[in-house]
Amino acid sequence: MKIPPHVSIVGATGAVGKEFLEILEERNFPMRSLRLLSSPRSAGSELLFRGEKHVVEALTETSFQGVDLAFFSAGGAISKQYAPIAADGGTIVVDNSSAFRQTDGIPLIIPEVNPEALDEVRQGKKPGAIIANPNCSTIVLLVAVTPLHREATVTRMVVSTYQAASGAGAKALEELTEQSRQVLAGESPSPVVFNEPCAFNVFSHDSKIGEEGYNIEEMKMVWETRKIWNNPDIGISATCVRVPVKRAHTESVTLELERPLSPERAREILGDAPGVQVIDDPKENRFPTPLAASHGDDVLVGRIRKDLSHKSGLCLLLSGDQLRKGAALNAVQIAELFL
Amino acid sequence: MKIPPHVSIVGATGAVGKEFLEILEERNFPMRSLRLLSSPRSAGSELLFRGEKHVVEALTETSFQGVDLAFFSAGGAISKQYAPIAADGGTIVVDNSSAFRQTDGIPLIIPEVNPEALDEVRQGKKPGAIIANPNCSTIVLLVAVTPLHREATVTRMVVSTYQAASGAGAKALEELTEQSRQVLAGESPSPVVFNEPCAFNVFSHDSKIGEEGYNIEEMKMVWETRKIWNNPDIGISATCVRVPVKRAHTESVTLELERPLSPERAREILGDAPGVQVIDDPKENRFPTPLAASHGDDVLVGRIRKDLSHKSGLCLLLSGDQLRKGAALNAVQIAELFL
Repeated sequence: MKIPPHVSIVGATGAVGKEFLEILEERNFPMRSLRLLSSPRSAGSELLFRGEKHVVEALTETSFQGVDLAFFSAGGAISKQYAPIAADGGTIVVDNSSAFRQTDGIPLIIPEVNPEALDEVRQGKKPGAIIANPNCSTIVLLVAVTPLHREATVTRMVVSTYQAASGAGAKALEELTEQSRQVLAGESPSPVVFNEPCAFNVFSHDSKIGEEGYNIEEMKMVWETRKIWNNPDIGISATCVRVPVKRAHTESVTLELERPLSPERAREILGDAPGVQVIDDPKENRFPTPLAASHGDDVLVGRIRKDLSHKSGLCLLLSGDQLRKGAALNAVQIAELFL
Repeated sequence: MKIPPHVSIVGATGAVGKEFLEILEERNFPMRSLRLLSSPRSAGSELLFRGEKHVVEALTETSFQGVDLAFFSAGGAISKQYAPIAADGGTIVVDNSSAFRQTDGIPLIIPEVNPEALDEVRQGKKPGAIIANPNCSTIVLLVAVTPLHREATVTRMVVSTYQAASGAGAKALEELTEQSRQVLAGESPSPVVFNEPCAFNVFSHDSKIGEEGYNIEEMKMVWETRKIWNNPDIGISATCVRVPVKRAHTESVTLELERPLSPERAREILGDAPGVQVIDDPKENRFPTPLAASHGDDVLVGRIRKDLSHKSGLCLLLSGDQLRKGAALNAVQIAELFL
């Protein structure tokens, strides 16, 4: 891609779109120009970037002419329709939707985990390509677990999640706030976005459930980990649950390893791992929380301990901002691999 | 014990004490008299039971004269000091604290699970005895899992909890309410009861952490399950976490079984199990929630599915009211075994 690139953000007015603007600005991402795209409904609105107003344009098939790099975050249907057009026209597309994650030949990338999976695209003859950004829960999990996997080989993971309302979008976050207000005022909230009341409650993840009884969020963790680790045999048992938290996903992880790994050695490895911050203080009872992880770049890891029920098991509690590292930040880091 | 008994509640003014009064009234528990006991600080206050005012008396060493049955829920130190005095004097003590749960010769009872462990006490020559009530998280877990264990033998459990603030007492519940109000008003809450902000946050359980890196809440699940199931080899990997929920504990449970058990058969077994209600509707995405479990007697069970990562594994999501079945209700049900 041409450097510095002409950049575009599709879905600029959404929850993740706003994170993109913030992160590109923070990281001083080099660019020649920035084009913000959205649905016709949101077109015409203005967003600030580097102190300048940018008018949001309606997305069309010709939007990507002259664009070197496009971040897509407007849902799977928009990605399916427009990402191939952009890529065919020579644009590097980093797609935040699930549209192409399982597609053969499309790299699914976490820069700390499998940057080498980009080599083919980077060395390819065509300037354009689609690169998929994994689902938030998978990113948070694998940033923390991969360094341990490299040392001791994970054979099975049992994961239970504590996922923030904002993972279901800006309206879901509003619903949490509004329902919390209602409950405190003694009123009974009526769920709209979610199937269950979300204030002061916990419920199984709101994504669709397949034949095996797993919801799509859980299966994404399975499918995506297998592709990213290039290991179709890795066993994953996931339970995805929403909690009344605004931002950042927390995960309770039990690993089975091929070789035993002491908590001390795991702490050492994670202390050196990029994108990871160890918060593990049993004396003070200080461990990762979604509040501490919110608006940060790192996945926080703690409660690192031997599994009492497995000879080479290790347990962890981790927390990561699903809108940043789980979405926009990871996508920007993918783009940085092209710079 | 004499029937109907003279009954006493120690810790009558506390969060669980109030549940005792409600449950004894609801279940029309037969009694000749009721004596409410508390610390000198709360003595003199009045509580309603069956429409009549009862004055709370200060607990002393002579409080149990003429008392056939005493429910203790005033913390481990009070139980350690007064429960043996009561039992020596001929009172059946059902103790809700952790003081005697691991003591040899003291039965640790969940009526649906191991009522036979009471036989020795019931057939004993002495009228008095101490019977221990397990910890809330253990009760909720074993009410649901034991029927499956009887059918297919559980060898290992991986459990992650989503525990309500009220599990840490009435003050903790107030802190959740107050902090939620503060956050909605744009203020920054200062934690007092908990170590971490509890509103819109999730954090590792607030109990003390031992040498192996496990907190006491997690170890209670291990120790108590082993005693209740009379199986020192059962493997349990527990991660206990607080969530901003007022009432009822939720648990994500992954079972490893000696023999495979289909989700259909598990649903059938749980459908017939006492104290269990199956809520498992993948089409409508309806599963157990703490809101639905609150103020109910049953442990709700759903998300019953084959573990994709283990040949004879089964996953569940369950939710139970930790103040009722997890504490007062279970204790009253233990007492009912003597009627």
